[in-house]
Amino acid sequence: MQNEASRAFRKGCRAYAGEWFERVRAMSEDGPGVTRLGYGDVELAVVNALEAEGQRLGLEVAYDKAGNCWMTLPGRDRTLPAFVSGSHADSVIWGGNYDGLAGILAPLSAVRWMVEQQVVPPRDFSVVVMRCEEQGCIGSTGWLGRVKPEDFDRRFKPGMPTLGEFMDARGVDRRAVSDGRPFRPLSEIGAFVELHIEQGPVLETSTVERIGLVSGIVGILMHRTVTVKGVRAHAGAVPYAFRHDALKAAAILVARLEAHWESLLREGKDLTYTVGVFNTPPKGAFNIIPGEVSFSVDIRSLDAGVRDAFGRIMKEEAEKIEKERGVSVEFDAPVVLEPCLSNPAVFARLERAAAELGIPVRAMPSGAGHDAAVFGAAGIPVSMIFVANQHGSHTPEEAMELDDFVLGADLIRRTALDFE
Amino acid sequence: MQNEASRAFRKGCRAYAGEWFERVRAMSEDGPGVTRLGYGDVELAVVNALEAEGQRLGLEVAYDKAGNCWMTLPGRDRTLPAFVSGSHADSVIWGGNYDGLAGILAPLSAVRWMVEQQVVPPRDFSVVVMRCEEQGCIGSTGWLGRVKPEDFDRRFKPGMPTLGEFMDARGVDRRAVSDGRPFRPLSEIGAFVELHIEQGPVLETSTVERIGLVSGIVGILMHRTVTVKGVRAHAGAVPYAFRHDALKAAAILVARLEAHWESLLREGKDLTYTVGVFNTPPKGAFNIIPGEVSFSVDIRSLDAGVRDAFGRIMKEEAEKIEKERGVSVEFDAPVVLEPCLSNPAVFARLERAAAELGIPVRAMPSGAGHDAAVFGAAGIPVSMIFVANQHGSHTPEEAMELDDFVLGADLIRRTALDFE
Repeated sequence: MQNEASRAFRKGCRAYAGEWFERVRAMSEDGPGVTRLGYGDVELAVVNALEAEGQRLGLEVAYDKAGNCWMTLPGRDRTLPAFVSGSHADSVIWGGNYDGLAGILAPLSAVRWMVEQQVVPPRDFSVVVMRCEEQGCIGSTGWLGRVKPEDFDRRFKPGMPTLGEFMDARGVDRRAVSDGRPFRPLSEIGAFVELHIEQGPVLETSTVERIGLVSGIVGILMHRTVTVKGVRAHAGAVPYAFRHDALKAAAILVARLEAHWESLLREGKDLTYTVGVFNTPPKGAFNIIPGEVSFSVDIRSLDAGVRDAFGRIMKEEAEKIEKERGVSVEFDAPVVLEPCLSNPAVFARLERAAAELGIPVRAMPSGAGHDAAVFGAAGIPVSMIFVANQHGSHTPEEAMELDDFVLGADLIRRTALDFE
Repeated sequence: MQNEASRAFRKGCRAYAGEWFERVRAMSEDGPGVTRLGYGDVELAVVNALEAEGQRLGLEVAYDKAGNCWMTLPGRDRTLPAFVSGSHADSVIWGGNYDGLAGILAPLSAVRWMVEQQVVPPRDFSVVVMRCEEQGCIGSTGWLGRVKPEDFDRRFKPGMPTLGEFMDARGVDRRAVSDGRPFRPLSEIGAFVELHIEQGPVLETSTVERIGLVSGIVGILMHRTVTVKGVRAHAGAVPYAFRHDALKAAAILVARLEAHWESLLREGKDLTYTVGVFNTPPKGAFNIIPGEVSFSVDIRSLDAGVRDAFGRIMKEEAEKIEKERGVSVEFDAPVVLEPCLSNPAVFARLERAAAELGIPVRAMPSGAGHDAAVFGAAGIPVSMIFVANQHGSHTPEEAMELDDFVLGADLIRRTALDFE
């Protein structure tokens, strides 16, 4: 009986995953939060502990060229492309315990239940423990052989070793993860489903849907530095008509774009617009009209057309403000990431499993990037499951209820079993 | 004949002051500009050089308790309150040569002309070399005995000795400059006229008036730190309705106040509104909705009522934005300086002298603070003369034409002679 199985699974999962969450938290506690840097010692210890658990469960365990750990429960028909689920073991500095880890322990709980119940899934069911997602999805990108040479020189923080040095220390072959070739033929993966905490407030503020099915992962258009240049001058001595105030121009530009955003939202468009960094120069002063201001712009949408249209509006408004205020507005080279829609067949399977299990779900976009988006952009059929969580992410305050988590894990269990 | 005298004076002044400007520049050259820090070695050397020139001219030389140097040409009736003119010898770091110095060399040129021509003014004519204006009019405030105890602990830049330590090294008595008593009875000063470069573009862009007569020195309402607090969150994962974006709230507030300013200017109000510093926190990132932003506000007007009305508009708009965006806006304790109108009689004398000398003048407010405002607020009859200058002030690019300067110096000469 499905309800019976589900009830038993969720109860066991609650205890099993709950214990593992605390075990990993204890391994990675770091002052106010947890720290598991990609390719660092703590991440490695966590991956090794999970691998040992896979061995204990009798799974087939293998590492790929990027150091991701694949743990496979063989299916009835081993010639079929595998059902894969997993997420990343790393965290940011002083991050939360559930970001990434939840997406590993959910399928691991499902596999453990199958082993214990001696249930054989229709096809291979792999749990993958990914590496170094927080520094730009390096584990999934490395699996595809697409790490860029310049990525090796990046540092998570100034003064730390480079990413390449971290990878060298773990024995990761720099050439192999950037050779342009996937580790396995993409066709061997039938579906990749990543469970993740939502990182946002939508599910957390719902009393009905505590689980989200991700319709797609947004595309991004980002400028790290938009520079507005005017003329630095004395606050008291320069009347309005003579001013070329970089700060006012920038503030008005940000405010006008906010009004455009509000208008597009009223039209029902999927879009976010964020200015995360905005600064006058260090040599500014209370009584000086700023001659220069720089700020960042982050534009996201599931619809590349909406994203790009907002980018054009931004440029048009910048030109207007240049003329109105006698300033210049310069945009650095944009970072552009394409949106990745969920595979319709995989999404439909998740929807059906939710209906069968009686789990209320909400279809929603993911505004954040994930390993699933990297695999999806490469052509692998992907989808994601979101779990309600508290206090966002990348903060020690990040939290999640196990009552919500087990619903998502059950969804993975059921989908893996149904994936014929 | 007045025209004859004027022509001779201006020619001599051009050579004499021109030589002194270059002598002082050579003493204070510092990389890209000049540096004469208040109560520092270079300022002292400049004051001593000017004192020696006063001695050479046979003037009565004396230092007051704040270290300002008074050099007096005795007048016909020594019982009358003196006509005083001067400005400050100090500069900012890497500042310009004319800010302050022009206001010393103008009356010094006039006194020198009187000595050489054996012209005796109707009353004592004092040239005063002020100290340390750039750190908050310390020379004039010290003369009045009104330096505040906390001023001694301030540093011009982090890592430098305190102002008090600079003053100690010059033998300035901290108690004397903060004892609440003026150095001399205020009634002994009949008028204080300060010549200064405009620091703004109004005269420089005029082909007619190269000299300004200052109708008054603006009052200031300044908040060094307005803090907008919202909720830090993930740029992608938090939809519009859930955001409490401190940056957007602050940018919109700045932009709305700009619109209010424009509207008040159209009504003919005297007002400036400047945001000189505006920053997201150092731990901000491109993909994080800022949870906090801080900025400064500087409001200036000749009319305290207009200044305060704009201050109230600012608070009202802040309350609106708090409600609209679910943020808080906190204002630190304001710095409030009262406006100082020119003494009508002194202003009228300057106007008459300009008419007699055929110098086109423009009545205008001073948007910057000056020692004259400190003396004026204490009850001394003050006014100011502005000279057209290029490239603002507090920058190595600051410039001034001697052709403009000699007109201002001639105005002081004539006014001192007419001040019966």
